[in-house]
Amino acid sequence: MKRFFNKRDTIVAEGLEGLLRSSYGAKLCRLTGADDIHVILRKDWSKDRVAVLSGGGSGHEPAHAGFVGKGMLTGAVCGQLFASPGVDAILAAIRSVTGEAGCLLIVKNYTGDRLNFGIAAEQAKALGLDVEVVIIGDDIALGRNSKARGIAGTVLVHKIAGAAAESGKSLVEVAALARKAAASLSSIGLALSDCSVYNPEQEPRLRDDEAELGLGIHGEAGIERIPLTGLDALMTRAAEKLEASLPREGRFIVLLNMLGSVPPLEAYALLDGFSRTALAARTDWIIGPAPVMTALDMNGFSLTTLPSEPAFLDALSSDAEPRAWPGLAPYAPIATLPLPPMTDTFLDTPSENTMLRRLIVTGAEALIASEARLNALDAKCGDGDAGSTFAESSRVVLKSIDSLPLASPQKVLSTLGRLLARHSGGSSGVLLSILATTAGNEPSWRQGLQKGAARMQGYGGARAGDRTMLDALLPAIEALEAGSSLHEVAQASRAGADATRSMKARAGRASYIPDEQLKDIPDPGAEAIAVLFETLAKAL
Amino acid sequence: MKRFFNKRDTIVAEGLEGLLRSSYGAKLCRLTGADDIHVILRKDWSKDRVAVLSGGGSGHEPAHAGFVGKGMLTGAVCGQLFASPGVDAILAAIRSVTGEAGCLLIVKNYTGDRLNFGIAAEQAKALGLDVEVVIIGDDIALGRNSKARGIAGTVLVHKIAGAAAESGKSLVEVAALARKAAASLSSIGLALSDCSVYNPEQEPRLRDDEAELGLGIHGEAGIERIPLTGLDALMTRAAEKLEASLPREGRFIVLLNMLGSVPPLEAYALLDGFSRTALAARTDWIIGPAPVMTALDMNGFSLTTLPSEPAFLDALSSDAEPRAWPGLAPYAPIATLPLPPMTDTFLDTPSENTMLRRLIVTGAEALIASEARLNALDAKCGDGDAGSTFAESSRVVLKSIDSLPLASPQKVLSTLGRLLARHSGGSSGVLLSILATTAGNEPSWRQGLQKGAARMQGYGGARAGDRTMLDALLPAIEALEAGSSLHEVAQASRAGADATRSMKARAGRASYIPDEQLKDIPDPGAEAIAVLFETLAKAL
Repeated sequence: MKRFFNKRDTIVAEGLEGLLRSSYGAKLCRLTGADDIHVILRKDWSKDRVAVLSGGGSGHEPAHAGFVGKGMLTGAVCGQLFASPGVDAILAAIRSVTGEAGCLLIVKNYTGDRLNFGIAAEQAKALGLDVEVVIIGDDIALGRNSKARGIAGTVLVHKIAGAAAESGKSLVEVAALARKAAASLSSIGLALSDCSVYNPEQEPRLRDDEAELGLGIHGEAGIERIPLTGLDALMTRAAEKLEASLPREGRFIVLLNMLGSVPPLEAYALLDGFSRTALAARTDWIIGPAPVMTALDMNGFSLTTLPSEPAFLDALSSDAEPRAWPGLAPYAPIATLPLPPMTDTFLDTPSENTMLRRLIVTGAEALIASEARLNALDAKCGDGDAGSTFAESSRVVLKSIDSLPLASPQKVLSTLGRLLARHSGGSSGVLLSILATTAGNEPSWRQGLQKGAARMQGYGGARAGDRTMLDALLPAIEALEAGSSLHEVAQASRAGADATRSMKARAGRASYIPDEQLKDIPDPGAEAIAVLFETLAKAL
Repeated sequence: MKRFFNKRDTIVAEGLEGLLRSSYGAKLCRLTGADDIHVILRKDWSKDRVAVLSGGGSGHEPAHAGFVGKGMLTGAVCGQLFASPGVDAILAAIRSVTGEAGCLLIVKNYTGDRLNFGIAAEQAKALGLDVEVVIIGDDIALGRNSKARGIAGTVLVHKIAGAAAESGKSLVEVAALARKAAASLSSIGLALSDCSVYNPEQEPRLRDDEAELGLGIHGEAGIERIPLTGLDALMTRAAEKLEASLPREGRFIVLLNMLGSVPPLEAYALLDGFSRTALAARTDWIIGPAPVMTALDMNGFSLTTLPSEPAFLDALSSDAEPRAWPGLAPYAPIATLPLPPMTDTFLDTPSENTMLRRLIVTGAEALIASEARLNALDAKCGDGDAGSTFAESSRVVLKSIDSLPLASPQKVLSTLGRLLARHSGGSSGVLLSILATTAGNEPSWRQGLQKGAARMQGYGGARAGDRTMLDALLPAIEALEAGSSLHEVAQASRAGADATRSMKARAGRASYIPDEQLKDIPDPGAEAIAVLFETLAKAL
């Protein structure tokens, strides 16, 4: 059990302080005066409308305090981990927020919560306050009866009641709408693991090949242990279980809730999996995926349905300030845009230049001939494929030789740039593509190579002396720029490649190899460049 | 490794489909036409401003696609898990979004990303498009140099560049501001575990008593292994490491990012822990805590600082559509509201009624005398404390007898309701408090008891016949309501308690005990009620 906490006894208080300090807690405040009372309220509340309170044990964040804000809850009364808050805390919250318009308490169906919120409501009434209570029991795992637990569907009632209250409805109207929603909710959970209540002695309940369906949000065991299968099969299992409890006709709003430690990528993928269930075909609106009612660090999700009725949709789609509310959107086909036509590699009419053709063919053939030798070098300082990468690029160039606009060196460079970008593997091909593309884009290809070499360094991050192909390439380009002969260029390149034998590797995979292992071995990329220029010089 | 996924090869495509189907993906679309190209774009984009693109390997959700939307990214180019997208995908994205105003590419400092985004930028320029690239290397773990990795700070550049573009600034201005931000960012990560790349063979890198500091977001090992300590010590370690890299003067905007599987409660608590670090004293603004740049399911967080400068603050505080953006708020003291004065238990002037006094004293003493017998009964069908619960409540009542407004039965009931709510342990005390409070609130206490009994059932969830104290209480209240003598009331209550001997338990802890073990044992709560009425009848 590796978790971020100081003490089990203080994590609730610390967590709530953190919420208030967060970038989404700036409009919240808390009651002070008693250490065991944790009540989070809207800072801007003026008692001019129906107050909506909820709460219960902690460990379900962002529920309940994370949903305090305009358009949802007026306040949240937070108990210790998985333990109901006491009557005094609840009464203090009611008294702090309730004006003429009255107050609705939204309570999950657990004995402790029902009792403590219930008695606080009675005491508030005795003080002359107008209070209504709505009990949420949306979990269908144990059947639809008076014992049904309140789980993620509760958050939809927060939103529905909060919107109704914000719109100025009376307590009777707000409570009636909340009760109607509560009576129409259905939820089911599925998890791969139980949650850790910060007890280092806790043993996992499930085997490595097990998941469970119909669990509770306080570590209560599921109603069924099921085999741990792929995402689609698990999601289908949950959706089928839920659908079996629903009326056979009708369309739905669906909430996909995460139970605590599911990473966002998997949360998204779970919704994609949902699209392949039968229930998805009856879904008109979607909320989430998002953690709204968690069970500490439980690795699981829950599905909730609510009938797709105008009164619910109006309330669910209205603005809500709490950032934890995931919003409501039509559950519709994905919007697409066609890919722009891909750049054609060969934009220019092929043309001839026998000398350039000979240079390209000779250079390519030399690199293909060096494949095994360069791979062997690379095996000592990289992943052993440098030779193959250069050879493969060379084969692609040879295959395309008749499509090249050989009469224009600029256009040839541009074309090679596009060709290498699309067909070369590895960083070296991409780097040479950057060089060629940049050079081909300049009026003078000699100056263009200089500029391209600078771009290679900019994008690749290596510099001269870092033991890369740049150490053979940069001296060659400098010599070309200075108007040297191809023979001199080849000499400069060779000298650069040889110098890598004593260089410390500061880029690429070789930088992870101890220096002594690299001693006297030239960088394979630099060696390839030297071989290329030596071949070209001979061919001219 | 228990994770929600179908196949490692498909989770990125499925995840992005899920994002588009989500309640916060309704304004997004994707490019279609090539299976290996994953580009997410704003649906409403009209190319009238500078386009802002980002992207890179997947596994960092909500980055990057989750930040596509008005005020942040125009689009995101998503590679496979932890692998850079190809040049064609990036170029397709650039061509899809870039108009006269040009396009900024925000790229994390990894060789693959730098190369692929770089070459796509060159190709786009060759096609006549105006493109700038900004490289983010905010991680200070490996020192401030050209190798510094891009981590969570990248998302702040998404926001800053997105806001600048939305406000109509030119590409040169947007790129300059993004580069200024990039140069000013500092980040550090801390985790309790490495991430799972869906490889069932993977062994955990860290021991159970180890955490790590200065890790990468692709499973790269941290620069230091540190002991697994409490939250405060870990947060302090990270904040100190980060602060050591910062200028000695200056105030900051801080982003607290979650790395993938930290539950919301712990995320909040981490921010509270941050408040106890030296860096907090130099913090003016806060963003998060929230997952913005994750590393699949890594159980960790990262801290990022940016100097608190007006240009950054303007851009970070402007509106942004993406729901994953956690907002910016002043890092200020927590707002508080004083607890309302607690209801005084004794609201009414004490008064005398010798008969009522005798009934209360006799009843309380009888329950105290029954403590051991009732506990023994409860040991067979509950947790063995039913007798103590009734006895403790009775002692509290006896101690307060001189403070009771005995002349008014209603006021006595109200007072007992408040007394029991505050001082009784267990559900039975809270239930009797509900009964007394409700009854005391009615003009007639007899009818009030009827109403109170209904409320007990409403809040407690048990019904007549469920084997609870209601089975002795309801017949007694009915008899009282019918005007029967206290002797008849006691008889009704006793008959009810005796009947529980053969009842199936459907509420409370006894409902978890096999029926045969409960046979012939009366419910201890019902027994207590019968004892109470029998004593009162005798005392009258």
